[in-house]
Amino acid sequence: MTTAEERKPAGAGAASRRWQEVIDVSAQVFYRLGYSEASVGDVAAALGITKGSLYHYVQNKEDLLYAIISEAHDLTEDNLRHAQAIDGPAVERLRQYFTGHVRINTDHLEKSALIYRDLRHLSADRRRQIVGVRDRVEAFVRQLLADGIAEHTVCPLIDPRLASIEMFSTANAIYQWYQPGGPHTAGEVAESVADFVVSAVACDGTPQGSCYRHAVRHTASPESATAVHPM
Amino acid sequence: MTTAEERKPAGAGAASRRWQEVIDVSAQVFYRLGYSEASVGDVAAALGITKGSLYHYVQNKEDLLYAIISEAHDLTEDNLRHAQAIDGPAVERLRQYFTGHVRINTDHLEKSALIYRDLRHLSADRRRQIVGVRDRVEAFVRQLLADGIAEHTVCPLIDPRLASIEMFSTANAIYQWYQPGGPHTAGEVAESVADFVVSAVACDGTPQGSCYRHAVRHTASPESATAVHPM
Repeated sequence: MTTAEERKPAGAGAASRRWQEVIDVSAQVFYRLGYSEASVGDVAAALGITKGSLYHYVQNKEDLLYAIISEAHDLTEDNLRHAQAIDGPAVERLRQYFTGHVRINTDHLEKSALIYRDLRHLSADRRRQIVGVRDRVEAFVRQLLADGIAEHTVCPLIDPRLASIEMFSTANAIYQWYQPGGPHTAGEVAESVADFVVSAVACDGTPQGSCYRHAVRHTASPESATAVHPM
Repeated sequence: MTTAEERKPAGAGAASRRWQEVIDVSAQVFYRLGYSEASVGDVAAALGITKGSLYHYVQNKEDLLYAIISEAHDLTEDNLRHAQAIDGPAVERLRQYFTGHVRINTDHLEKSALIYRDLRHLSADRRRQIVGVRDRVEAFVRQLLADGIAEHTVCPLIDPRLASIEMFSTANAIYQWYQPGGPHTAGEVAESVADFVVSAVACDGTPQGSCYRHAVRHTASPESATAVHPM
């Protein structure tokens, strides 16, 4: 099957801008009407072109969804490469990763809503490819959490797998509540969410610990709770 | 308009159980097929009854969605009343509230997915009623955060409004990743998520603070960031 990317008119600035407009307007229409409810005709109407002209760019509605989600995941991979390249303690790198991750969400609200809401509408092959990007960023965060435990900056009572899921749950929900032009700027939101998810795992990392989990002596695993704190 | 509740056959145990089955099976069908894609006929087929029989209970598909979401919100209000009734420091009450909130999500995965995914399909009146429940639980959490700051158990650098949103973002995403029968029990997940969201805001609450936010001297406001850390 021809992918949307392969079908994209190459080498022409105007054509490339037009293709970007197709992606952007599709995201707006799918977000507003819901992907299932929206039709290729709705997107064409919003672009001010005929359905026939739109079929010059894509074969079907799913090609449009795939183009939208791919663009957002390219940005996610850029942010991952950036965070991989920087030095510093694990908690600082976690904070930088999530600050960038949240900014992608605030700056592409409709596209990020579609990623989280409508991934299941992609074909199995395409879904696998997108999930591969997620797997890489999640593996990166789990490794930083493990590094942080070793460096004594992340709480040893956390489960890196669960903590990574919890961090992404918080950071990926931006589209559900962030309002551009509302009481908080995108930069403030990115900083607040990054501080929230890092604060949730940070600790002086010693067996005595300095954090809330140590204070209440809670652990995710009943066995280790018994081992560390006989009750 | 007659509501689903008013149309529910009253006084008969069997009829009441049958109505509960209608709600439960509707939730499964809407979750599996997607609310927009599913029809009243799909629900009737899954129940093993005719569409005509299903119309004995409800007038349309939206009545089914409303019944599902109302049931989940009744549980949320019960949990709120429970958390309001207990004594103790604000962080402990926050932990108890969120432990219960996550358990509702783990134990009613399909229904909670529909709440977060498909609320927009309810009529304006019904949506307002459901959003009213949300407003009450969010106000409760914001008040506990403010109490915690006054008690010196919550970090004074947080913004209670943003922190409340961040806590619910984490706790409401359970349906996106929790797998019953997977590596973690519902109880472990509830404890892990509650510890995560409380750890994200906890601190000894003094101006010097004991938390990550104080350690990096970050605040949500650029002015105060500049004031504290001239760069």
